[in-house]
Amino acid sequence: MRLSEIGEKEAVRRIQEMVAERGSTSSIGPGDDAAAVDLGLIYLVATTDILGQGTHILPGMTDWQVGWTLAAVNFSDVAAMGAKPIGLLVSMGLPRDFDSSRLDSMLRGVLDCCDHVGGELLGGDTKEAKEITLAGTALGTVGKRDILLRRGASPGDLLAVTGSLGLAAAGYHSLMNGLGVKAAENAILEPQPRVKEGMVLSSSGVVTSCMDISDGLGSSVHALSQMSNVSFSLDFDEVPVEEEVLVVAEAMGLDPTDLALYFGGDYQLLFTIRPTGLDRLRSLLGEGFSVIGEARAKGEGSGDNVIARGREIVRLENRGFEHFR
Amino acid sequence: MRLSEIGEKEAVRRIQEMVAERGSTSSIGPGDDAAAVDLGLIYLVATTDILGQGTHILPGMTDWQVGWTLAAVNFSDVAAMGAKPIGLLVSMGLPRDFDSSRLDSMLRGVLDCCDHVGGELLGGDTKEAKEITLAGTALGTVGKRDILLRRGASPGDLLAVTGSLGLAAAGYHSLMNGLGVKAAENAILEPQPRVKEGMVLSSSGVVTSCMDISDGLGSSVHALSQMSNVSFSLDFDEVPVEEEVLVVAEAMGLDPTDLALYFGGDYQLLFTIRPTGLDRLRSLLGEGFSVIGEARAKGEGSGDNVIARGREIVRLENRGFEHFR
Repeated sequence: MRLSEIGEKEAVRRIQEMVAERGSTSSIGPGDDAAAVDLGLIYLVATTDILGQGTHILPGMTDWQVGWTLAAVNFSDVAAMGAKPIGLLVSMGLPRDFDSSRLDSMLRGVLDCCDHVGGELLGGDTKEAKEITLAGTALGTVGKRDILLRRGASPGDLLAVTGSLGLAAAGYHSLMNGLGVKAAENAILEPQPRVKEGMVLSSSGVVTSCMDISDGLGSSVHALSQMSNVSFSLDFDEVPVEEEVLVVAEAMGLDPTDLALYFGGDYQLLFTIRPTGLDRLRSLLGEGFSVIGEARAKGEGSGDNVIARGREIVRLENRGFEHFR
Repeated sequence: MRLSEIGEKEAVRRIQEMVAERGSTSSIGPGDDAAAVDLGLIYLVATTDILGQGTHILPGMTDWQVGWTLAAVNFSDVAAMGAKPIGLLVSMGLPRDFDSSRLDSMLRGVLDCCDHVGGELLGGDTKEAKEITLAGTALGTVGKRDILLRRGASPGDLLAVTGSLGLAAAGYHSLMNGLGVKAAENAILEPQPRVKEGMVLSSSGVVTSCMDISDGLGSSVHALSQMSNVSFSLDFDEVPVEEEVLVVAEAMGLDPTDLALYFGGDYQLLFTIRPTGLDRLRSLLGEGFSVIGEARAKGEGSGDNVIARGREIVRLENRGFEHFR
């Protein structure tokens, strides 16, 4: 089977499977946004993400934005574990004729994002490659009792997201079709990892599970559902969607639901809250998050993840953005 | 300036320069084989290396060997700091038509090398790319007083290397020319990171500086000289060279000195020993290392790094293997 047939998720799943097969001794195995290594009083959190031309690296993106994005998508996984960033390492495959001033711009983007999240650039390597291929590894630390995992949600917990959804999708379509919807385009060109929010969530004591939404809400809800062994019931009216998403959907004749649920790139955090903890989290994060649904025992009703749209309740699809395919 | 003009080392130097510019707060800045982050009682050591087709990935290499090499070159940098490996993260840019069974073989190579050094595969990511581009990030820990750096050598210290030199170079020429010198070919196809030796060196209390020899002895001695502000005087008769290196040099009409000093790929450790500590290190490592020279104050004699070859003393050249160029 070729990678184009099995898809990227399956390829990453194989890596996870082989890790599990060897009997990992790190306290938290694969399946979460990052690995967590037991260092005594704390967990060391480590994650790697690779960017390639045509996926994260969009036409018209500046080199600074490419560098920023490389750091941002990696720190987003650190945020999903509720960890405080230590820093980033970058490995860059670059073409022979790549101008060194472009490398400088890219590195400035990386450094600015590191500064933004309170991390450091820890190291880097470069090699010649036919096309730009950028790999980052982000590191962070989190208290042992505070770490946020994909598992941990219980029936009755509230499902919530930081920020809004669909803006990156709208930005993608705006960029590709020259619509010029700047707020949306910025969302995909300069993703904002929710590091501060992640640290608040982990130290709040009321968050029961968490992950970042890199591939879209649909696939993320299914991942959380699977890892926590609960079903989720969502209300589309509560899903925070910016005006720009509706504008772009209208202009392109697209369903805004698709942009908000099944595209990804927003790098928001999806998490569950103990029902009694909502007030505490509001006092910590204000309006920085929205409750969009709740967890139910599996087997209740359809037993699947569903979303209400007006009077209709439909199955939340398990699809999102995927490479190789 | 294009990367092909400035070369890979200059590109990596630029990364280091930009890190320094931002005022890194990690205790050990760039310039060493790995970054070291202060975690209280220990340093977290982190390093990244990227492999591409045509450099580390040689024609005829099996996928298992590619995976092994990816892990080995990264763990070699952890070894150079005297650290105990935690594990590795891998990011793989792979072609669409890459068979998933080949990915499995590559991952088995990664896992076997992780097992070999006592580390774990902590995570991974894959993306579509035109050619195979593999990035690894290795992590380790080392006691604060034990860490080995490139700086620290004093005049009078002995210069030493683990294992032997030139075998990987001989293997490269054997492979490229079908000479079939297996012991040499194995050295370049399955490099052995000196992790155990690094841990012994760091805990011995008698090693004053250390680095790994990835690009050849010549450039490594110059790097150590610059970071420690000493000159080195080497004796070529003491440089450990296997029979196979002479065989390949003879067959190819090459100077064996070139293979032993200026090619790289052996991933041995180059280090300095307090003169009074030699016996202690012999008791710990036996014949696993060779003393090949000593450190002198800069300005003594030529003030440069030199090597005696019989009666002749020549300048040790600052050149090694470099990508992009």
